[in-house]
Amino acid sequence: MRLVVVGGVAAGLSAASRARRLDASLDILVLEKGSRIAYGACGLPYYIEGQVGSLDQLTSRTPDSFRAERRIEVRTQTEVSALRHAQRELQLVSGERIRYDKLIWAAGARPANPARPDGRTFVLRTDEDAARLQTFLEERRPKTAAVVGGGYIGLEMATALRARGLAVSLYEREGHYLRRGDDWLTRRITGRLERSRVAVRLRTPVGSPAELSEDVVVWAAGLKPNTGLLADAGAATGRSGALQVTDQCETTLPGVWAAGDCAETHLIVSGRPVWIPLGATANKMGRVAGANAAGLRQRFPGVAGTSIVRIAGLGVALTGLNPEQARLDGFRPAAALIEAPDRPRYFRGRQLQVELIADCATRRLLGATIAGDEGVRGAINVVATALAARMTLDDFLSLDLAYTPPYAAAMDPLLIAAQQLAHELR
Amino acid sequence: MRLVVVGGVAAGLSAASRARRLDASLDILVLEKGSRIAYGACGLPYYIEGQVGSLDQLTSRTPDSFRAERRIEVRTQTEVSALRHAQRELQLVSGERIRYDKLIWAAGARPANPARPDGRTFVLRTDEDAARLQTFLEERRPKTAAVVGGGYIGLEMATALRARGLAVSLYEREGHYLRRGDDWLTRRITGRLERSRVAVRLRTPVGSPAELSEDVVVWAAGLKPNTGLLADAGAATGRSGALQVTDQCETTLPGVWAAGDCAETHLIVSGRPVWIPLGATANKMGRVAGANAAGLRQRFPGVAGTSIVRIAGLGVALTGLNPEQARLDGFRPAAALIEAPDRPRYFRGRQLQVELIADCATRRLLGATIAGDEGVRGAINVVATALAARMTLDDFLSLDLAYTPPYAAAMDPLLIAAQQLAHELR
Repeated sequence: MRLVVVGGVAAGLSAASRARRLDASLDILVLEKGSRIAYGACGLPYYIEGQVGSLDQLTSRTPDSFRAERRIEVRTQTEVSALRHAQRELQLVSGERIRYDKLIWAAGARPANPARPDGRTFVLRTDEDAARLQTFLEERRPKTAAVVGGGYIGLEMATALRARGLAVSLYEREGHYLRRGDDWLTRRITGRLERSRVAVRLRTPVGSPAELSEDVVVWAAGLKPNTGLLADAGAATGRSGALQVTDQCETTLPGVWAAGDCAETHLIVSGRPVWIPLGATANKMGRVAGANAAGLRQRFPGVAGTSIVRIAGLGVALTGLNPEQARLDGFRPAAALIEAPDRPRYFRGRQLQVELIADCATRRLLGATIAGDEGVRGAINVVATALAARMTLDDFLSLDLAYTPPYAAAMDPLLIAAQQLAHELR
Repeated sequence: MRLVVVGGVAAGLSAASRARRLDASLDILVLEKGSRIAYGACGLPYYIEGQVGSLDQLTSRTPDSFRAERRIEVRTQTEVSALRHAQRELQLVSGERIRYDKLIWAAGARPANPARPDGRTFVLRTDEDAARLQTFLEERRPKTAAVVGGGYIGLEMATALRARGLAVSLYEREGHYLRRGDDWLTRRITGRLERSRVAVRLRTPVGSPAELSEDVVVWAAGLKPNTGLLADAGAATGRSGALQVTDQCETTLPGVWAAGDCAETHLIVSGRPVWIPLGATANKMGRVAGANAAGLRQRFPGVAGTSIVRIAGLGVALTGLNPEQARLDGFRPAAALIEAPDRPRYFRGRQLQVELIADCATRRLLGATIAGDEGVRGAINVVATALAARMTLDDFLSLDLAYTPPYAAAMDPLLIAAQQLAHELR
């Protein structure tokens, strides 16, 4: 029985590893288009920033280690050109044909490319992309940079290029960042970017790099899921454009699972199908796809929609729904936004902004948006856990969270927000 | 209708504030034995350590602010000497009698005093205790210190006195710290204390300060709940010695509620009554007691048993049950102990040790013990939230936790521990 996995980064490798652990007899082959596997793509902006000395530091494993330790065959620089699912056969760009019994599609996503790209315009998705940009920065020594797109990559790259001393302008077509139209959050992010002297241009669509005068352009205007070959073979895609999968990560093609950045999942809070391409989700979906390809029947319960980004030193994290999304999903949301120190002043605690959202009808917690210089990750993870458990605001108010002055404030900002929200709801 | 609250620190003041918010017509009187209210007693070790410049910094409110902003009368240096519940009457040490309709007992706890104390022996519970010790340290300039007791206060005080440059010996009668007999944790704490050159004397009971040769002694050998007057009036106490209360925080005397360090609560995980005197619990219990005294019927759901302490820079946190406690409470526990970086190495991430405990029969999560130099609070709070939600290990494995390199590792140590525990359980 042969399992073929297309994609050798987060989802693909966790799927292959899990299948191997559950079924020692499977013949497992992983095909990766790029030259490296298992690299932490989320670390690429920090390579440009200078935190990561070499791309090797982002690579946790090699094909040899997979072969030796897990008996998983990994082929890099191996691109699939066609898929004939009726024959259970892949064709490679080289012409070679590869048979499979079961297939896991973990081909990831690719950046939207600019119209009329030029030699000073870069995307940042793969290690090759990062290497090219790095070479350009070192050899050409540009003074000014344009970053197009105010999503995660755009914000991280604006931060990274500022840290390298370039004069950076950030262009975003919408009036907000991260597809999250909360005014307070937009103000907070803009304030922080401007404090670090990034020129912010919201509501400024850029059609092509030719419109920009900066010395180097980073194009971070969205991602597209790599679904092409599978969609051509008949697999359904959702409204997001990513692959539709069951809660067992199976596509509409029998015997074909999909996981990671090419696949849809759904939001735990509302059940709505979403496409949120993130590394941590890819790892977990990959595990489930791998288990099911190995014969188990495991469920991937969906995502809370948790994400976090550091913007010029400011941590911003989201989970669940904001008020606007909650209304679209049929809830009647109430929200409370507070600002409170995350640790005592005498331990130089910094202010945390917490917006907590709950449903008026059921008092269920729906989401949170959190921003601050420290404590952001810890706080968003508590809310993400509460969302997974479908907690009400009242459950949340009783949480037994840790307190000691060096690490926490006597009143946790999360509980202050919850108390204020309870007042709004009654 | 008059509500009298005995105790003006965490539980008492949150009870009084909550009652006021819910019932504008109540006549509310708070009696506090000490000279300050609302001071953060948990901050006292950091006053000794030198992080807190003056005790005023630990005081968030004054009697005047309560009177002006909340119409709550607060009398300090006012000690109750007798309670005649049949007459709904308190008697003060001054002889004055005070009538009440409803009573909230939030009298806290007091340190176990040493036998034959002397002038160089101190406890650390109130601001007066801290001031006395501070004066002694400044005037007598002791070179050597003995700390008796390896609980929170003892560990914090050993840290604080080392930070001031004293040679510190820590004496603990048991073979472990924090009443938690996990060998790995004992080794980790001992290792850290010894690295900071604290002389550790486990399994070394000390009968009285006279047995010790150090220049100054901090006696931190346990607490006792302040239940005396209420118990004399007929209120039942539990096996812990603290006041028994219903899930609405009512004592066995009708119309008398108790909250905070003088009262029992129960562990969410096992339902077992426990006495865990901690500030964050006091705040939450106080809110519930205050609401019920104001006529609501609110429930305090119990505690996960979360606590955290910093020991010579090492964060140690607990929630729920360890394997030994789980067995005593009738579970069949399995545990996995892992060590993994909490952030990428290229962001100088430090190792986190996580022990996760679940029940073999139901796969329910039962508790965690976590130690490390960073990330400890965030991690324990996620487990505490999962315990409140009665999550299984499988729910936990699917948690959508935040990941971005500056703040988190691609594989959260919590999920690595959960994966290993899942292997143990199957």
